[in-house]
Amino acid sequence: MAAAIALSLRGRGVSTPNPSVGCLIVRDSVVVGRGWTQAGGRPHAEAQALEQALDRARGATAYVTLEPCFHLSPRGPRCTDMLARGGVARVVIAARDPDPRTDGQGAAFLAGQGIAVETGLMAAEARRAMAGFFLRQTLGRPHVTLKLGLSLDGRIAMPDGGSRWITGPAARAHAHVERARHDAILVGGGTLRADAPRLDVRLPGLKARSPRPILLGSGDAPPGWTVIRSPEEIATLEHVDHLMVEGGASTAASFLRAGLVDRLLLYRAPILLGAGKPALGDFGLASLDAAHGRWRLTGGRMLGPDRLEVYESVESA
Amino acid sequence: MAAAIALSLRGRGVSTPNPSVGCLIVRDSVVVGRGWTQAGGRPHAEAQALEQALDRARGATAYVTLEPCFHLSPRGPRCTDMLARGGVARVVIAARDPDPRTDGQGAAFLAGQGIAVETGLMAAEARRAMAGFFLRQTLGRPHVTLKLGLSLDGRIAMPDGGSRWITGPAARAHAHVERARHDAILVGGGTLRADAPRLDVRLPGLKARSPRPILLGSGDAPPGWTVIRSPEEIATLEHVDHLMVEGGASTAASFLRAGLVDRLLLYRAPILLGAGKPALGDFGLASLDAAHGRWRLTGGRMLGPDRLEVYESVESA
Repeated sequence: MAAAIALSLRGRGVSTPNPSVGCLIVRDSVVVGRGWTQAGGRPHAEAQALEQALDRARGATAYVTLEPCFHLSPRGPRCTDMLARGGVARVVIAARDPDPRTDGQGAAFLAGQGIAVETGLMAAEARRAMAGFFLRQTLGRPHVTLKLGLSLDGRIAMPDGGSRWITGPAARAHAHVERARHDAILVGGGTLRADAPRLDVRLPGLKARSPRPILLGSGDAPPGWTVIRSPEEIATLEHVDHLMVEGGASTAASFLRAGLVDRLLLYRAPILLGAGKPALGDFGLASLDAAHGRWRLTGGRMLGPDRLEVYESVESA
Repeated sequence: MAAAIALSLRGRGVSTPNPSVGCLIVRDSVVVGRGWTQAGGRPHAEAQALEQALDRARGATAYVTLEPCFHLSPRGPRCTDMLARGGVARVVIAARDPDPRTDGQGAAFLAGQGIAVETGLMAAEARRAMAGFFLRQTLGRPHVTLKLGLSLDGRIAMPDGGSRWITGPAARAHAHVERARHDAILVGGGTLRADAPRLDVRLPGLKARSPRPILLGSGDAPPGWTVIRSPEEIATLEHVDHLMVEGGASTAASFLRAGLVDRLLLYRAPILLGAGKPALGDFGLASLDAAHGRWRLTGGRMLGPDRLEVYESVESA
């Protein structure tokens, strides 16, 4: 299932309106099919994996990160039908599909076809990989990652605004992979005017994966940009399940003030700046006590000389 | 030798005017004696370890973190004499003693007595444990550790100055062990007036290990405090090999501006503050490029929910 979840991340950022699902078909300990949700949402992961497996799917086990779809769609066949027709003997599902058109009915249909069905294996990890899809269902808004590249003393730029470069090439490449996994990137007006950022994915072969640029503010935006007036308006963005907020400090603060940050992606360089621009503006924290218990460290690693730390909001877990 | 270095840390903070040395005597794979420099510098580590080993030192190997002393002192016997008289067959030395009264002569004397002598095993680690002693010899000043307890966004206090507590009990206990390993703690006038800090070691059994309090500034200091006017004056502090700078932001900046910080001890809590006091004031950094390449990560661990990171100055390495 860990491999299926890793596969599912390949579709992140391009699979909307569908969640990016991963599927692995295994027979006699050999992987005979792998799939993930393709750009635009079709084909589904199961369809792709079954097409690879062909006859080898008979009697095999399918690992799938989300309950296979049961609802009929004009856009393609139901995965439940395809799995049954493919002859799989067992389906292991990580997370149940909260969409009321499937929600347990997919698993029940498969069981009714004589297929062994198990649900819940690595459900938390699978839900994390599809966090935006689940938040859309529960809170009606995308999942928000706040990305900061900062010094040991929490500065994101020199006093003159210069921030090239705080982090090194390995950290910047990692941030570009993260961009590719998001449907949209948002910056504030100050960052747009000061840095004129290219919010694309500058990695070989991933240029086409550049997310949609969004401006929070009231000014003019370059062609192709979407403008929203408040953090709450992210709920209205179509086909955006995963949003990355890249700066600056007051934009980040406005998302924190609105309680709309689910994940922190902190790239910390081993430097001290002393003076310069702080990472965050005032977001209305009432007391020191109120700051505690909100964030949980869920990942950390070195990227060259820099350190990446990932925190997730305890509330959106 | 790693065990001898760990023993040597027990004398840190109380062994001045002598460096805190560790000594382990091993015979037939059994530890027969352990010692470290005692309060006030005597007895030496070797004397203590030999006293434990008694006759079992004959034919044994002594591991010692610093070259045994060769120079005569009215305060006690020479360790080179004691080791030879104790009958050890082999002496393994981590770091050569830079004091010209010993500097290689201790090792030569032991070899002349028919004892096998090796020098250099874990020398870098041993030098790090006695960093202040070596800096006194080379630069004529103590080793300086800058300690910061900060939020993910680099704040050390709320806008009203409140900082109790940013870090949790495990991090604070660790910081008190670090205090015990320092000869003196320094704060600035602002911190003294705002926090009236008790710079003692609040750990069971370690109260007596509280370091000497030092004020950087021009105001009045409480009884028992030493006052200095500039970071450079640390060179004049007697019996201070290891100094810990605890705050606030402008005091920390004045030490960085003077190039007088050898080690950063960062306790980072998983909280965001947004507003509040930054960790550091302006220390005159010329450019972003100039910030790079100065600090090397040499240790990191979780302390409850908080993360400790230790950086060392590339220049003082």
